[in-house]
Amino acid sequence: MSDSPKDLAHRLALIEDRLEIYQLVAAYGPLVDSNSVQEAAELWTEDGVYDIDIGAWHGRDEIRGMLEGELHQSLVGGGAGHVLSLPYVELDGDTAVATLYGRVFQHSDDGPFTVFRTVASRLECVRTDEGWRVKRRTNQLLDGSTKAHRLLSSLHDTSELEA
Amino acid sequence: MSDSPKDLAHRLALIEDRLEIYQLVAAYGPLVDSNSVQEAAELWTEDGVYDIDIGAWHGRDEIRGMLEGELHQSLVGGGAGHVLSLPYVELDGDTAVATLYGRVFQHSDDGPFTVFRTVASRLECVRTDEGWRVKRRTNQLLDGSTKAHRLLSSLHDTSELEA
Amino acid sequence: MSDSPKDLAHRLALIEDRLEIYQLVAAYGPLVDSNSVQEAAELWTEDGVYDIDIGAWHGRDEIRGMLEGELHQSLVGGGAGHVLSLPYVELDGDTAVATLYGRVFQHSDDGPFTVFRTVASRLECVRTDEGWRVKRRTNQLLDGSTKAHRLLSSLHDTSELEA
Repeated sequence: MSDSPKDLAHRLALIEDRLEIYQLVAAYGPLVDSNSVQEAAELWTEDGVYDIDIGAWHGRDEIRGMLEGELHQSLVGGGAGHVLSLPYVELDGDTAVATLYGRVFQHSDDGPFTVFRTVASRLECVRTDEGWRVKRRTNQLLDGSTKAHRLLSSLHDTSELEA
Repeated sequence: MSDSPKDLAHRLALIEDRLEIYQLVAAYGPLVDSNSVQEAAELWTEDGVYDIDIGAWHGRDEIRGMLEGELHQSLVGGGAGHVLSLPYVELDGDTAVATLYGRVFQHSDDGPFTVFRTVASRLECVRTDEGWRVKRRTNQLLDGSTKAHRLLSSLHDTSELEA
Repeated sequence: MSDSPKDLAHRLALIEDRLEIYQLVAAYGPLVDSNSVQEAAELWTEDGVYDIDIGAWHGRDEIRGMLEGELHQSLVGGGAGHVLSLPYVELDGDTAVATLYGRVFQHSDDGPFTVFRTVASRLECVRTDEGWRVKRRTNQLLDGSTKAHRLLSSLHDTSELEA
């Protein structure tokens, strides 16, 4: 590897991209668990998609609406933590894919927390003028289905994963 | 962005700061779960505070004392993992805030592990001669309370969070 | 710290090493949970060792065989997530140790996920022509045993941990 300033700057930029995607991942839980619904929706691009095995939401308005809906509000109101794991990040210029696990830990009044859901999650990200944003996030419940397996085995593939 | 050595060095220093804070976060569990109580207490500054919803400890001596106390020792003796999630890190010069989730996975003799606690956690960090240290860590049980929500929604705020 | 290109390049290389080890850690779950058994085995060196409290496997062929075996296949078939936490990484030239927690979240047909296992995990890594690989990974169930405590308290020690 060369130590020219230009090459050093390029290597630095790749690291900064990776760490910005870590931040995008790490911000999700704190925002959705504190009802910071507008800022949570802005983790996506304006026309970003959130595709979960139980529904799909297109654009920031729909995503915010889902977070304001009954299921999510009952989780937040009773106490819950949406915890995303350290992602595997595949960078490809102005796009990137982060593959990780999401878990929802749910408070129980009379005992330990329960693990409400564990999902495989794929965040297809894109560089925008605002920084890195999620273009499409796909979650699949880890129930042994081939969909979850396909999502997880696509960790190196930065093209759009077809449903 | 300029590629001058001075600018490159500045960008590099920001990344190093972020990764040192990751290390601070990642060291906590292994130290407290192995009874490395002195080194665990030294993750804090000499006068650092550990404020949990069930108590508060001021300074390294009190933090070490809590780790040597009955509740923590019963967890370590029976088998437990204090696992901190990938943090959202907001840097601000010589201070930084890391927002994350903590969970205690507890061994059970006759079945799967239980999730003893899930907390929202805020680490107010400061750069010292020894490296980055925790000045104040606040944990709030995720029980739907506004305290936990306020902690999580303050992820960008590097000022001291008032109790 | 100097801002000479040589010094900047050295600091950059240390960061790249650390982030490559994060990638090694983050790839494990997606690969084993999607039956990408060959690529999972290639996270280790050709003669790498995977030493778990319930068995030990030597070399990529044996590791792949374990992943194709009855216990792992029943987890993957029924739905499971092998989730590794943010590691503490101690770098030492061409070797490194990552200390972290592994958890297996297991799908249940009639209720929330269960936490099948929580382990302390140590990845002794080595730089190879293919990139960083695992030379020896040791998992210990968090059951209160001194073995798990010793593994966790050795987070700064990059020598080979004796069994």
